[in-house]
Amino acid sequence: MNWTRSYAILGTGAVGGYYGGLLRKAGADVRFLLRSDFAHVQAHGLKIDSPGGGFSLPRVSAFSRPIDMPPSDVAIVAWKTTQNGFLASTLPLVLKPGGIVLVLQNGLDPERESAEAMPGAYVLGGLCFLCSRNAGPGWIQHQDYGAVTLAAYSPGPDPQGETPEMRAVAADLRAAGVEVGMQEDWRMARWRKLAWNIPFNGLCALLGADTAQLLGQEAMRRQVEAIIDEVAAGAGACGTALPPALRDRMMRDTDAMAPYEPSMKLDRDAGRPMELDAIYGRPLQAMASAGFRAPLIEALHAQLEFSEKLTGFPQR
Amino acid sequence: MNWTRSYAILGTGAVGGYYGGLLRKAGADVRFLLRSDFAHVQAHGLKIDSPGGGFSLPRVSAFSRPIDMPPSDVAIVAWKTTQNGFLASTLPLVLKPGGIVLVLQNGLDPERESAEAMPGAYVLGGLCFLCSRNAGPGWIQHQDYGAVTLAAYSPGPDPQGETPEMRAVAADLRAAGVEVGMQEDWRMARWRKLAWNIPFNGLCALLGADTAQLLGQEAMRRQVEAIIDEVAAGAGACGTALPPALRDRMMRDTDAMAPYEPSMKLDRDAGRPMELDAIYGRPLQAMASAGFRAPLIEALHAQLEFSEKLTGFPQR
Repeated sequence: MNWTRSYAILGTGAVGGYYGGLLRKAGADVRFLLRSDFAHVQAHGLKIDSPGGGFSLPRVSAFSRPIDMPPSDVAIVAWKTTQNGFLASTLPLVLKPGGIVLVLQNGLDPERESAEAMPGAYVLGGLCFLCSRNAGPGWIQHQDYGAVTLAAYSPGPDPQGETPEMRAVAADLRAAGVEVGMQEDWRMARWRKLAWNIPFNGLCALLGADTAQLLGQEAMRRQVEAIIDEVAAGAGACGTALPPALRDRMMRDTDAMAPYEPSMKLDRDAGRPMELDAIYGRPLQAMASAGFRAPLIEALHAQLEFSEKLTGFPQR
Repeated sequence: MNWTRSYAILGTGAVGGYYGGLLRKAGADVRFLLRSDFAHVQAHGLKIDSPGGGFSLPRVSAFSRPIDMPPSDVAIVAWKTTQNGFLASTLPLVLKPGGIVLVLQNGLDPERESAEAMPGAYVLGGLCFLCSRNAGPGWIQHQDYGAVTLAAYSPGPDPQGETPEMRAVAADLRAAGVEVGMQEDWRMARWRKLAWNIPFNGLCALLGADTAQLLGQEAMRRQVEAIIDEVAAGAGACGTALPPALRDRMMRDTDAMAPYEPSMKLDRDAGRPMELDAIYGRPLQAMASAGFRAPLIEALHAQLEFSEKLTGFPQR
């Protein structure tokens, strides 16, 4: 592979460390931005465990300050949406003018902050179907899956279709061994992912459970299904009609997964802020603007917010 | 006071220890049935702390086996509904034939098991507005309130009005210093109490919070109100029309209370079984039989059941 594009990874954790590590291993020029793990990664590089074969990158290009990074062709935004306040001071330093931003974040439209932080950049949404976790400084445990679905972001209502930028990033990711899908309708891609994240992330975080435990109890399965139905109805009210078979396929796929603790559950357990605004607040706002009430999602959101405020979490 | 009725207290805890202690202090012949606290109470009696002035009863008539108790005129059922499987083997031993059963328990119709356990007994429901807790063996901390509303139980649909048995028990309780109300419609009394218990007991148990914490967050207040509205609509579907002003008065009254941890929250914290069937299962069944769906109550019930099964609880 002849690599023509350089990459900046914002957030070198379970997501950014995994995809950035694969790109680097395949030979791309990859610059990793880190905060608390910087010293360790600068000294020891990255280690990626994976059931399909792990690997180590003893020396990587690590940075603790955006201003020290050479501007890249593509920036991958892979930190939590709760950190998006840092985008405006980061993206213009790490991305070439007119470069591509690939947003690998959860929620309804996390691309919005990236687009606003750097007008003129080309913004792609990326939906990860990935089970992985950050097991320590510079150490990512990849558990299963890893596919990414790309979709071109637009603040307007029209699907953008397949674009040259999408194909370019898709080619790079595929060269790094990532399975890549392309979705012509960015909103469809986002709502599909939310139909999984909204029930599973919140219930696992609130109840201290993994996906297999949730689905192991009949009454809780019905709750999960009822919430998926509410997401689908809300998405429909917002103009995106999810496929009718989505719910049953999602339940089957999750039944087939190894027991999984979603990121929100790990955040909750570790006392980190949860991505409540991205995964609950914004979808609920969009539904409300469309005149749609989602009582079960509202209830779950209120419980999670309450729980976070009650016990507090360390400010970073 | 010339005491003509003797009392058997089944479950000498936060509720039974409090009312039984007041009756004993006033001079009534009271027999206390205990399990784990028997040896302590036999040796040291009961201690009731109260902001209005506590008292001690160094010697009380304590029993560990129903068969040892002399049959009483009135049996007060004050243990948790989760223990109601013991009623059939207990009530016929501790109550005189044709005696009165006063059921001081939570839920939709906890009187049913008492009535079935001893046909021929006269069954009264008692709704306690009481903040108290069991602080140790034979030690009850009364925090606030203490009124009891009596209502005559009937498996049929018709209100029983005020009965001689109600007035007799009311006179005894009043002689012991208890504020007593009488409600002609037993179902009305039960649904009113549920309109408080269903939101507050479950949310406090699930979220590890007290009433003041719940009501201190605006989104959670709206959840509490939405659940009260669902109880009221469900009660209406079951034929009991709660007063329209009930919700707002309940919110105001709870705002005015000292921060309170409902019994279900204490049970959850201590790893004891929660009264899920009495407070959620039966009301939901009654609503379903009336063709009414209560999605918020169903969701809370499923979460509580899930949480209890996930972490388990010690079997007694």
